[in-house]
Amino acid sequence: MTVKKYKKTDQVSYTLGLTLTIELLLKKPDKVRNVYLHSTINKNDAYYKIEDLCQENNIPFLQSDKPFNILSNKENCYVIGEFEKFDKEIEKDQNHVVLVNPSNAGNLGTIIRTAVGFGINNIAIIKPAVDIFDPKVIRASMGALFHLNFEYYDSFKDYNNNISIRELYPFMLKGSISLSDLNPKGLYSLIFGNEATGLSDDYLEYGQSIIIKHTNNIDSLNLPIAVSIALYQATKDTFN
Amino acid sequence: MTVKKYKKTDQVSYTLGLTLTIELLLKKPDKVRNVYLHSTINKNDAYYKIEDLCQENNIPFLQSDKPFNILSNKENCYVIGEFEKFDKEIEKDQNHVVLVNPSNAGNLGTIIRTAVGFGINNIAIIKPAVDIFDPKVIRASMGALFHLNFEYYDSFKDYNNNISIRELYPFMLKGSISLSDLNPKGLYSLIFGNEATGLSDDYLEYGQSIIIKHTNNIDSLNLPIAVSIALYQATKDTFN
Repeated sequence: MTVKKYKKTDQVSYTLGLTLTIELLLKKPDKVRNVYLHSTINKNDAYYKIEDLCQENNIPFLQSDKPFNILSNKENCYVIGEFEKFDKEIEKDQNHVVLVNPSNAGNLGTIIRTAVGFGINNIAIIKPAVDIFDPKVIRASMGALFHLNFEYYDSFKDYNNNISIRELYPFMLKGSISLSDLNPKGLYSLIFGNEATGLSDDYLEYGQSIIIKHTNNIDSLNLPIAVSIALYQATKDTFN
Repeated sequence: MTVKKYKKTDQVSYTLGLTLTIELLLKKPDKVRNVYLHSTINKNDAYYKIEDLCQENNIPFLQSDKPFNILSNKENCYVIGEFEKFDKEIEKDQNHVVLVNPSNAGNLGTIIRTAVGFGINNIAIIKPAVDIFDPKVIRASMGALFHLNFEYYDSFKDYNNNISIRELYPFMLKGSISLSDLNPKGLYSLIFGNEATGLSDDYLEYGQSIIIKHTNNIDSLNLPIAVSIALYQATKDTFN
């Protein structure tokens, strides 16, 4: 057992928390190396569920406080799952969210949670970008990462050359139609820029640019908020 | 000059950052006591804007690194505004967001940013709840707090007895109509529960309960995401 502070280049990552670890054990049991329990954990239903899932899948179930001291600065973390990172290519013929250079781990996790919530299970990420296996991403996703297909691309062109034909919707303050007029009939990709800079004007050339209108009392919406509102609008006919 | 670590009981709070401090100086100049500059600040346009605003309003403009060491753990904070907390009662005859027991500062700030962005400038907060003047709330609001009217209430009944007649929309997993069917014609309040527990079943009695439908692959949407999607749906006819 050699738990270290997480680094992007590591072959393993960690679920810091009970709910996340249950999602991991349910969706990716073959990838789990160890499950660590803190000595002060309450033996409630969730605890026994984790114990059962570990036994079923022959996963070591170890009591040790050390991984918690190394990996977690949250007080309420009593279970850690250690798992091998995995590839899960996006489905080229499904609807996508495309994130160009996202930089914040919490934001990426929140976006994953909402996307999976609205049935969009494919996210393409254009580099440079935050590491999707950062434990902060996994935590903010509330485990939705384990339901997701994702792929990193070197450039938007690279992405665009590798997917099936579809409508492209870049979200920009210069967008030419309002989000409330978006009502996609076929396949689509919703495209968003970096937290600080948004999408460059180059994206005006791709497909139909969209604006989420708001008052002048704010400069912009925060990125996960903009993505979530767009996902709601694009998918709402699916959920009625 | 006696800058201390922020406490809820203090009479002053702080804007940690340049954009926030400009919003403060523009919207609440009479409340600003001091503006602090870090010794490594770049003298760019924003710097001169702050200097001008301080001079116009006779606000001390002080170079000192000490407040930064006490108040900020962000590396990229070079300006701090110190201001007196203020009251700004909600307009009883306008649309409201009502937050029942919100507990997270970043979430409250993000909700304020989106609400102001969609033209809802009145937020009622039911206690117990996070302190709206926590510098983390102000930072996450990106300064939108200075455009907001807000009021704390001891209970939802207390709130409801003090406002003009309107449609009440509690957002609940047990909600009886889907958000996409929400199309308010008159005054309304959008009501949301605590991050962990949501609204209790008691709220099924108030007005028309609403559900934001999502897949079973997530337990729920995160609170600022749910509030923002609801705000988008409720206000979208205003922005077209």
